[in-house]
Amino acid sequence: MRKNPRITAVEHYIQALSAHDLAAIDNLFADDATIEDPVGSELITGKAAILRFYEVGFSSGISARLEGAVRLAANHAIFPFVVELNPGNGEVRIEIIDQFTFNDDNKITAMKAFWSEENMSTP
Amino acid sequence: MRKNPRITAVEHYIQALSAHDLAAIDNLFADDATIEDPVGSELITGKAAILRFYEVGFSSGISARLEGAVRLAANHAIFPFVVELNPGNGEVRIEIIDQFTFNDDNKITAMKAFWSEENMSTP
Repeated sequence: MRKNPRITAVEHYIQALSAHDLAAIDNLFADDATIEDPVGSELITGKAAILRFYEVGFSSGISARLEGAVRLAANHAIFPFVVELNPGNGEVRIEIIDQFTFNDDNKITAMKAFWSEENMSTP
Repeated sequence: MRKNPRITAVEHYIQALSAHDLAAIDNLFADDATIEDPVGSELITGKAAILRFYEVGFSSGISARLEGAVRLAANHAIFPFVVELNPGNGEVRIEIIDQFTFNDDNKITAMKAFWSEENMSTP
């Protein structure tokens, strides 16, 4: 059975975060996508602003790994993962759940990241 | 530090699922709450309909366990968990992520459950 393309998109996203691969991020999002990270913060709208957001993340030396199954429902994929920032220099670990919403081309139209200070720790 | 009451609510919810404790479920939800389980299905509205929904679940011999940290963001708690249904009689396992939205009294006003057939398996 072919893997669901929305699960593949999540796996490519996690790989792109660790590889600091901006072209891969670019390829995953629709042009008019929005991101809300964390949920409750100001919405970031459009591909240019989204790529700037990830460039800042990459400059923190981010790495990421999935922490459980990708759940699918309606046009969403939602998944638990862990990121680590600032390796070797004030390292911080954040436990996050992301919700992706997809269009019919399986491009991400909305990303919401659920986390708060309670989900941050130092190793 | 006192544990965040919304994390405590999630822990009570998981315990109530396994204990088939309808009074505990009743205590967790606001009277006018809604549930959407799975996301994309028809909304269930109000305490009476919600309690009927859980009674049906309990009759399947449901058990549940958390599968990772509860993430908090804005007025939401969101968490990965696993349920098992029909123990010893066509057992089914479902990997789910639930999103709870809380009011100022820390009662659940909305529950959304993200899962699909792709998240079901038989042991």
